[in-house]
Amino acid sequence: MSSDAGDAARTAPGSAAALRIANQRRVLAVLLDRGTQPATQADITRETGLAAGTVSTIVRELAAAGVVSTVAGSGRRGTTVRLARGAGLVAGVDFGHNHVAVALGDMSGEVLGEDRRTLEPGHPYAEGLQAASDMLDTLLAAAGAERSELRNIGMGLPAPLSDGVVMSSAIEPGWVGVNARDEASRVFGVDVLIENDANLGALAEHRHGHGRGHANVVFVKVSSGVGAGLILDNQLFRGTAGTSGEIGHLTLNDQGPLCRCGSRGCLEAYAASGTALTMMHDQMPEAGVDEIIEAAKQGNVSALRVFEDAGLHLGWGLATVTNLLDPGVILVGGDMSHAGELLLESARLGLRRHVLAGTSTTPVLVAELGDRASMVGALVLAIDATDLLPA
Amino acid sequence: MSSDAGDAARTAPGSAAALRIANQRRVLAVLLDRGTQPATQADITRETGLAAGTVSTIVRELAAAGVVSTVAGSGRRGTTVRLARGAGLVAGVDFGHNHVAVALGDMSGEVLGEDRRTLEPGHPYAEGLQAASDMLDTLLAAAGAERSELRNIGMGLPAPLSDGVVMSSAIEPGWVGVNARDEASRVFGVDVLIENDANLGALAEHRHGHGRGHANVVFVKVSSGVGAGLILDNQLFRGTAGTSGEIGHLTLNDQGPLCRCGSRGCLEAYAASGTALTMMHDQMPEAGVDEIIEAAKQGNVSALRVFEDAGLHLGWGLATVTNLLDPGVILVGGDMSHAGELLLESARLGLRRHVLAGTSTTPVLVAELGDRASMVGALVLAIDATDLLPA
Repeated sequence: MSSDAGDAARTAPGSAAALRIANQRRVLAVLLDRGTQPATQADITRETGLAAGTVSTIVRELAAAGVVSTVAGSGRRGTTVRLARGAGLVAGVDFGHNHVAVALGDMSGEVLGEDRRTLEPGHPYAEGLQAASDMLDTLLAAAGAERSELRNIGMGLPAPLSDGVVMSSAIEPGWVGVNARDEASRVFGVDVLIENDANLGALAEHRHGHGRGHANVVFVKVSSGVGAGLILDNQLFRGTAGTSGEIGHLTLNDQGPLCRCGSRGCLEAYAASGTALTMMHDQMPEAGVDEIIEAAKQGNVSALRVFEDAGLHLGWGLATVTNLLDPGVILVGGDMSHAGELLLESARLGLRRHVLAGTSTTPVLVAELGDRASMVGALVLAIDATDLLPA
Repeated sequence: MSSDAGDAARTAPGSAAALRIANQRRVLAVLLDRGTQPATQADITRETGLAAGTVSTIVRELAAAGVVSTVAGSGRRGTTVRLARGAGLVAGVDFGHNHVAVALGDMSGEVLGEDRRTLEPGHPYAEGLQAASDMLDTLLAAAGAERSELRNIGMGLPAPLSDGVVMSSAIEPGWVGVNARDEASRVFGVDVLIENDANLGALAEHRHGHGRGHANVVFVKVSSGVGAGLILDNQLFRGTAGTSGEIGHLTLNDQGPLCRCGSRGCLEAYAASGTALTMMHDQMPEAGVDEIIEAAKQGNVSALRVFEDAGLHLGWGLATVTNLLDPGVILVGGDMSHAGELLLESARLGLRRHVLAGTSTTPVLVAELGDRASMVGALVLAIDATDLLPA
């Protein structure tokens, strides 16, 4: 939802008009929290603490503006309310090393359609944006919607970002130095919010995955790179310059293998998918991560060892995060998480081995939303950035 | 300041009475933020956005209740206002391995008196509390104040805490398993808030030290133990069970020296004061940290190396924190920080060596409040917990 600053521009703070807007926001907050589950007016009255008459008035105003839809129930208080299509639509876009995924959603968080395509690694950014734009057009057409209905688009990139600019990325070389926010806004014709893909995964898991109900959630994406998104005290924590969560470059061994970042013995050098491919190259020169996982499941001892070693190092990094942040749950996503317990069992051992004894029993699980996490997080980002208050 | 829940108990939310309380809180928030610097009514009007007449009314009400004092200036808007002695007093208590420090303060943050005494390492907790209580009586008497004026006491301990209970501590064995909050409340006869000492240092530096103006502050206390306090997005971050900031037990080398925590190669095993004392024991068997610092300053190459090595390892730990949290500033306190640049120069080198290149130029400084940091943080904690609204 939008800021106090916007409200202050409309009304004198502390005035009756400001109070009315604040009360509308309370009602909208309940509906956003409910998502696709409709709330009765009695629910809204209870959850906001507002008077029943005030809630009725606000619901009537919001329905007249098309922001909510109502379905009559038993009596006025039994009428159910949910965010309506008239509140606008959002899209979520997630770029990876060799894919782009796009989802179209409404303000209740309902996904109206989604698609995923393979991209060439190292694709120029303009090519990636064009592919996403084409996919979005197809999704809009299928939903019978216009681009003008889009209020905001959330977009994820596997790179550190500062004020919309891609600062560096070995994973997305075609995007480095690009103001991704401005370029995407131009191509899509609507405001775009840019976020690191691991941050989006954390947002998604906190709202719709295994992170629900936890105030402190660490989401770790283990793919070509290793990065973390942090939900701390129920908020996405981005850091001072937007570069928090660089778990992949924790030094585990300062005499270890060189990492592409210029340091040595980084977690990423032990646990990223590229390391698994390199280790298995002689045995399985053409294999991708999923083929190596399959080989491990068939009992290939080398493949098993690849995930065991990756997991032990991942767990060491998770112990570091746990010592510093004491999260309620740690969720692992990305290509390497397809290995499931083959990776996580040794990750838990590594965690236990390196965490301060007696201070934590943080669970480590595979992310619930799987490969969709960052895309769903991009939808959440777009919804959160939209001001639903009628003008 | 106190909670919405308290206000909800007094008034219906969204009502005119709730609005009046909310406006009083806005005025009090400005005064708390000003601290010992008085605000004019014009300042308050500007900073709250409230109407001048509303501010006048609220100031008159708060002055009548004794919560604020006013000094007439040029015209009504020129009248200066500050929090008054009638708002009550607070105390801050800081326990360390072999000391206790106590400060008496008012709600403006002014320290009315402070004292520090040496304690036996391993003292029973009751003995420590009695010493603090005696010191507090002396400070109250010197200020011409009664215990009944105390609204809250903040208290710091160098240990992980959960719901007031000291979970484990090699530094304070006499406190382990004790519900420090309840015991201290009983001895002091007033509500006590308990907090880890490094967390208090972070609070103090954020409010009154080199952390001012930074949203993300890491305070690292390097003494008998090594612990960090984290201010993230301007709030103290405690973690899920209250055990965040355990930077001392990051594993830097899993084949390194055994740490008292049961792990190997922890940062604490390289950088804590005990390691410096052990390394220098043959040369300076009776020396404390300050004597070793003095020897280093005189050119003793072994003593210089002790701080260089501690600093390199400390910097490695700081790089880990920086990769994960991207803080705006890192402040180092505790006994070892008395070494100043002898420690920090190599810490900065260690940080640069292990941080992800190009993502951070986080400054590393000695904490501004020095050995007073945790005590001042305890005062801040007590002030923040006090509801200044007249009943």
